[in-house]
Amino acid sequence: MEKLAGNLVVAQSGGPTAVINSSLVGVIQEAINHNEITGIYGALNGIEGILYENLIDLKKENPQTIEKIKRTPSAALGSCRHKLSSEEYEKIIDVFKANNIRYFFYIGGNDSMNTAHVVGKMTSEMGYDLIAMGIPKTIDNDLEYTDHCPGYGSVARWVATSVRDAGFDTEAIGVVDRVKVVEIMGRNAGWITAASALGKEKDTDPPHLIYLPERPISIDILLADVEEWYKRLGYVVIAVCEGVKGEDGNLLSASASSIDTDSFGHVQMGGAADFICKLIKDKLKIKARFDKPGTIQRMSMALVSEVDLNEAYMAGQDAVKYAMEGIKGKMVSLVREDNEDEYICKTGLVELDKVADAEKNIPDNYINETGNGVTEEFYKYAKPLIGGPLLEYARFEKYLLSKKL
Amino acid sequence: MEKLAGNLVVAQSGGPTAVINSSLVGVIQEAINHNEITGIYGALNGIEGILYENLIDLKKENPQTIEKIKRTPSAALGSCRHKLSSEEYEKIIDVFKANNIRYFFYIGGNDSMNTAHVVGKMTSEMGYDLIAMGIPKTIDNDLEYTDHCPGYGSVARWVATSVRDAGFDTEAIGVVDRVKVVEIMGRNAGWITAASALGKEKDTDPPHLIYLPERPISIDILLADVEEWYKRLGYVVIAVCEGVKGEDGNLLSASASSIDTDSFGHVQMGGAADFICKLIKDKLKIKARFDKPGTIQRMSMALVSEVDLNEAYMAGQDAVKYAMEGIKGKMVSLVREDNEDEYICKTGLVELDKVADAEKNIPDNYINETGNGVTEEFYKYAKPLIGGPLLEYARFEKYLLSKKL
Repeated sequence: MEKLAGNLVVAQSGGPTAVINSSLVGVIQEAINHNEITGIYGALNGIEGILYENLIDLKKENPQTIEKIKRTPSAALGSCRHKLSSEEYEKIIDVFKANNIRYFFYIGGNDSMNTAHVVGKMTSEMGYDLIAMGIPKTIDNDLEYTDHCPGYGSVARWVATSVRDAGFDTEAIGVVDRVKVVEIMGRNAGWITAASALGKEKDTDPPHLIYLPERPISIDILLADVEEWYKRLGYVVIAVCEGVKGEDGNLLSASASSIDTDSFGHVQMGGAADFICKLIKDKLKIKARFDKPGTIQRMSMALVSEVDLNEAYMAGQDAVKYAMEGIKGKMVSLVREDNEDEYICKTGLVELDKVADAEKNIPDNYINETGNGVTEEFYKYAKPLIGGPLLEYARFEKYLLSKKL
Repeated sequence: MEKLAGNLVVAQSGGPTAVINSSLVGVIQEAINHNEITGIYGALNGIEGILYENLIDLKKENPQTIEKIKRTPSAALGSCRHKLSSEEYEKIIDVFKANNIRYFFYIGGNDSMNTAHVVGKMTSEMGYDLIAMGIPKTIDNDLEYTDHCPGYGSVARWVATSVRDAGFDTEAIGVVDRVKVVEIMGRNAGWITAASALGKEKDTDPPHLIYLPERPISIDILLADVEEWYKRLGYVVIAVCEGVKGEDGNLLSASASSIDTDSFGHVQMGGAADFICKLIKDKLKIKARFDKPGTIQRMSMALVSEVDLNEAYMAGQDAVKYAMEGIKGKMVSLVREDNEDEYICKTGLVELDKVADAEKNIPDNYINETGNGVTEEFYKYAKPLIGGPLLEYARFEKYLLSKKL
């Protein structure tokens, strides 16, 4: 089979991550090996860069810069959240034709997979030869048909580390700040919040309570949970997903004004932790404070998961390899080998349209019965993704002296 | 001179830090070398551990655990914020007598220095031989008579790194989330917030605006600042201290209910970033979101400043060395050598009562004229404290292709 010759364009979309640039560099460094790929272009700000023809020549970049970009968080090409209209789809294809673009790689979440799918389908119907491929990226880990998503392992490592840190803080100063609530990112899926458990060594280690959007929160049960742990330890650490909902199905948000929507109709969240703190202060008369690390959690190269960084690269690299075999209209997936002794992950392929509209929540067997923590099955799933153990911390044995007075 | 023989007690107080345990281990590991010090005790939860005679025998701890505690964030002995009454001071001295405690090391901020001072003075007046020494600890860096405080370098490294990370995020997704506000800890002094500038390489790097409690904020000027940067770059990153005040002298807090006070009458802050976001959305109609990392920022061993960790240890170790020379009633200070070529820091001594009630704000020449950023002098002061350069990130040159359409 003769390989399709022409230019390649790669773009990044949606919320940035610590490793989305690693996928980008995987695409670039693999594409350089193939003579059929004449130009390697980057679209600035996702699909908007194609729409407005804001394309850069990545072959002109210093190879050392490209290597450094691999370990630079965020999206080096810029990102977007843009829902294309039918006119805009046509414009995109005009740009492809005008620039002889034959390979389109879109790194993003399920909205981006949908965009890649439609572009691929439209060009195919028009008889324009184009290979459109999707490369998964989302800290939310909510894409179906892939074991996990590049970006998740690193945010999980950050959250496990930082909630453990915040927990050590509250353990020491719990005589003053009795309850600490850490608000963690996540819309409908609690994968990131669940990762807060990965810093625990025993039941009494923080976080003591983990609230996920997969389970509606009963205010009464929450207050009883907090009171129970408070009586047991004298302090409580809670990890709560910003997307948690009450029993009425509404977001547990402190203020309606903090709720915005983006162009896909996704709600901009925040306020759950503030709400819970106020609730605890009002109803239990216990002092509570919250940490809301926000976008910082998804951007840390200092706490990157090396496993995640390498898999993100592999996803980008393999996307190009698959494309050079003539495969198109697929998203590269991550496939975990069924192996009890060792974690091994390779890439696979999944139809773009299948992945586009599906959302993967945490399965029931990863969440405990009371809906305020995770199970051993979750640990088994998530531990390998964060790339090795966290830093080793210690506690004193605390040999109490007998009182003299 | 004959050295005072008896037991030593060490305690930790106030908000925990990443390196307060390093000072503690400095005390323990130095004290072991001195035969006059018979027992090495730790008081649980600061001065309360002495008051209630909750003392632990640190000599019984595994030396490897002690070594690991050096690199464990938070206060391994537990902390407190307890203002002692006169009756309680007397009780403390009774506990000292009953346990033959002759050395008292208190690791904390200025409230703790005051406690150590009063304990030292009262025992001296009663003719009970006791050496009370203070070891500085505060992320706030607001103690006078010391070049800087152990704990500051590490929080400064965390903030410089994380605001840079959040800035890279907004740079990429600024087409959606146009303004990012990061709320940083600090009551009256903006030292930690100012450290957000340490991740900048050039003027246009985030954060573009830095608001400190040393300068009252004019809402109109703030909005003009934001608008100017927004027009220039299309996105804006702001670092704001939680303790910033408006022109009326009141905290710029979103909700009065978020303001609590502790037993020293210190206000529990938070809400400035939320307030600024709402303001920007209301008045400028620009989308804004905030990150409020809270206690996570002061607890990170992954982002510890090695300079800070070592100085914290040195402060603890030297406190014991000074005490063994018979020095008492002093706080160990950090003294920077007047050396243009190299950063060298040693310990010095300062009267406890002098440091107790003084608070060191950022000097005028460290803050820019417009009050929304820092000067070169601040960089010179703070850069050596964060322990080496941050991770190297890169940006593409972005060689634009000519448009075909």
